[in-house]
Amino acid sequence: MLHSFYKKNKNVKLIDIIDLLNLKLEYENVDIKINDIKDISSSLEGDITFFNSIKYKNLLNITKASFCLTTKNFSIFLPKSCKPIIVNNVLIALSKITNLFYPNSINDNFDNSVSLIDNSNNFNNLSYGKNVLIGNDVKIGDNCLVGHNTIIESNVIVGNNCSIGSNVIIRKSIIGKNVKILDDSIIGKKGFGFFPNDKNNIRYPHIGLVIIEDNVEIGCKNVIDRGSMSNTIIGKNTFIDNQVHIAHNVKIGANCVIAGQVGFAGSSVVGDNVMIGGQAGISGHLKIGNNVKIAGGSGVINDIPDNAKVMGYPAKDIRKFIKDSKQ
Amino acid sequence: MLHSFYKKNKNVKLIDIIDLLNLKLEYENVDIKINDIKDISSSLEGDITFFNSIKYKNLLNITKASFCLTTKNFSIFLPKSCKPIIVNNVLIALSKITNLFYPNSINDNFDNSVSLIDNSNNFNNLSYGKNVLIGNDVKIGDNCLVGHNTIIESNVIVGNNCSIGSNVIIRKSIIGKNVKILDDSIIGKKGFGFFPNDKNNIRYPHIGLVIIEDNVEIGCKNVIDRGSMSNTIIGKNTFIDNQVHIAHNVKIGANCVIAGQVGFAGSSVVGDNVMIGGQAGISGHLKIGNNVKIAGGSGVINDIPDNAKVMGYPAKDIRKFIKDSKQ
Amino acid sequence: MLHSFYKKNKNVKLIDIIDLLNLKLEYENVDIKINDIKDISSSLEGDITFFNSIKYKNLLNITKASFCLTTKNFSIFLPKSCKPIIVNNVLIALSKITNLFYPNSINDNFDNSVSLIDNSNNFNNLSYGKNVLIGNDVKIGDNCLVGHNTIIESNVIVGNNCSIGSNVIIRKSIIGKNVKILDDSIIGKKGFGFFPNDKNNIRYPHIGLVIIEDNVEIGCKNVIDRGSMSNTIIGKNTFIDNQVHIAHNVKIGANCVIAGQVGFAGSSVVGDNVMIGGQAGISGHLKIGNNVKIAGGSGVINDIPDNAKVMGYPAKDIRKFIKDSKQ
Repeated sequence: MLHSFYKKNKNVKLIDIIDLLNLKLEYENVDIKINDIKDISSSLEGDITFFNSIKYKNLLNITKASFCLTTKNFSIFLPKSCKPIIVNNVLIALSKITNLFYPNSINDNFDNSVSLIDNSNNFNNLSYGKNVLIGNDVKIGDNCLVGHNTIIESNVIVGNNCSIGSNVIIRKSIIGKNVKILDDSIIGKKGFGFFPNDKNNIRYPHIGLVIIEDNVEIGCKNVIDRGSMSNTIIGKNTFIDNQVHIAHNVKIGANCVIAGQVGFAGSSVVGDNVMIGGQAGISGHLKIGNNVKIAGGSGVINDIPDNAKVMGYPAKDIRKFIKDSKQ
Repeated sequence: MLHSFYKKNKNVKLIDIIDLLNLKLEYENVDIKINDIKDISSSLEGDITFFNSIKYKNLLNITKASFCLTTKNFSIFLPKSCKPIIVNNVLIALSKITNLFYPNSINDNFDNSVSLIDNSNNFNNLSYGKNVLIGNDVKIGDNCLVGHNTIIESNVIVGNNCSIGSNVIIRKSIIGKNVKILDDSIIGKKGFGFFPNDKNNIRYPHIGLVIIEDNVEIGCKNVIDRGSMSNTIIGKNTFIDNQVHIAHNVKIGANCVIAGQVGFAGSSVVGDNVMIGGQAGISGHLKIGNNVKIAGGSGVINDIPDNAKVMGYPAKDIRKFIKDSKQ
Repeated sequence: MLHSFYKKNKNVKLIDIIDLLNLKLEYENVDIKINDIKDISSSLEGDITFFNSIKYKNLLNITKASFCLTTKNFSIFLPKSCKPIIVNNVLIALSKITNLFYPNSINDNFDNSVSLIDNSNNFNNLSYGKNVLIGNDVKIGDNCLVGHNTIIESNVIVGNNCSIGSNVIIRKSIIGKNVKILDDSIIGKKGFGFFPNDKNNIRYPHIGLVIIEDNVEIGCKNVIDRGSMSNTIIGKNTFIDNQVHIAHNVKIGANCVIAGQVGFAGSSVVGDNVMIGGQAGISGHLKIGNNVKIAGGSGVINDIPDNAKVMGYPAKDIRKFIKDSKQ
């Protein structure tokens, strides 16, 4: 699935990696071809992987990767079949190598392969507006609507019975059926991920997608960023109001209700049946349980267990918040 | 006025309502035509209304409606001239019946009746940009400007001397004179109103409008939702900055100043001469008095009397907030 | 530089100013031409300036201006070479006279001089999308990308190697090299500045620009307003996420990281290497030092010294905030 969205550079050799990372390491055969970059558990023979956290040490026993980006200290844990490529900063090296394999994942330059939609597109019972632009290999299901000036970039998949508004931009995304995306939302742009650097920040590639499940409604002027390594996901029958910001890798469950101007920082996971009031903010890398209610304007900076009702900044039990604020 | 925006289904019979609500009720003549759905006080003979709150009981004495959606318990209050249609959930039934009468009020599918503006539109001294799309029966006053890529959907009315920017979308709205709407605002989309449901939320129709009075300025990237049953209103000479969200049924008075990124939840009423700082949030169904000042970043969750100055979350008297926050 | 963006009315006479301000003052020669309106220190012979604050009294000794808008009380400080034009409200008078000189600075009516880009534009190695509109005298550097439906208005300057997304609007701006502006941002619109008035607010002109320095990245759906008298500036290698609002005259330093939905009120100055979390708000006219960290959701209403880490509303030392919020 991934490869239809991100064209892989099939001609990466070990020497290219050594050169790109500016290493002075010696290997027997630097002309050997490297097939792909993957995480430890899913990589295959011929692939390169990365190892940067001791908590994944056990996975090294089963990795099939032929090479591994890692630090000097961590290199001792690698199995013999997996040769270390020792670097100072694994994540920056990973970023550079991912970019080498997937060069069109690091930037969101406009898709210049799109063309004006017309009847030759052969979508089944599609109703479309003026100036609609469609990329290569876009799939749109039966009985869909696509509004004026909307841009659907290459390889995007849209299910049956979807209504997409005007001025919408969709890229790197897979949309389920019966989904509504209202005017002027942007789905699937790269996330806000980079390594700060005094002269010129280094962007890391975003090779994930946005997955929008069935019966979802996305309001106007939402921005939903795609994932970096994993995907950003909006669960079934979740409804989202206007001007909401959902950063990369966020996973939102089913049947959630998210009011206007809410913002999610990256990589948080939200359960099912969660209700979030307007302008609330959810920090990054949190776990919000099922059936949680978050009052409007709250700032959530800690995990929230199932069934909790929270309010305030930092968000706490709503009864405690109301009691405290009456003092 | 309403009917020019929402085309009424003129062929609704009692049997259609019974079928849609999946009722097994018996009436003498199920083929009788029902004319319209209205509230208790404005409905006429031949109409259907709804009764869901005891505080409107007195209005039943004067209603002319022939039928009334209500619960079994409430049905005893109906006059003889008004036959009950008993349902478990009046609001869901109301939603379904409103949708039956006004099928194009529940979705905001793009307006495919628009066409590229040209001189045949015969607006008086209108200056317009490239790729402007105008719906059927749009009225634009004298000496107006309409920027590039802007879409003005069917039946919208714009007064004299208005300047509308580029990439704007206007639907279901009536705009006064000397109004400025800056680039990329969306005026008149449906509000975020629905009945949550585990499988497939039920949207309720939004048959209200957005009314923008004379001399108003709307900044960039605003979203102003239209009303559900009543209208969303922006009063005379009110100025609104960028990225503001105004939900359905909100009524804002005259001479207000609303800074960037402010958000209003649904159905609040704001007086005249109110100043609201950036990023403040106003919860739903509140009454904000005249001459109120709300500091930037505040979260307003209670009514505010005339002339008050508030700050904080929950917003309180600004002197108390500043004193408390120094502790 | 200024004059290429704002066409100056070269035929302003003293009588025009007297008439516009509705004054009944007598001067020897009311037909004398006035050349320009400038601040006290930069104005030349033949110009008009303004004096409204005692702290600039010393500058009057060196001003070369021939006329000065001021109050009766302040007029006694003027040198003989500078004739007073006495008004009740200097700022309103200034606004009216600035508008007289620069009539296209007060409104942001769409630029109707733009035309559809084509190869005759002769930009060097430019890749552009569909429906791109370019104003008069736009300069775009080598190897740039400009996405679909983007509008670049008259006189805008874009440096080499820039990538501008789709649906972007740029006006009154100078963009450095290696800059990325993602989809649907609006750069250079007028700020939210006016004199409230019960019947019809009086807008003041915005004759500043937006200056975006090299290597900056601007996310999706940002709004960056141009300056009123000075410029709005985004420093080198600063990265900004989605849906951020930057009001007029704000100056942001180099190497800053600004997360989603942050809002800046007007005229604040931010140092270098500042990190601001999502949804934080920065009030107007503040000075934020270098290396400051502002937690997401914070509301900053006071100056912040170098190297401080703050959180909360009003924002305070982050350790104090965390300690206080555990009580």
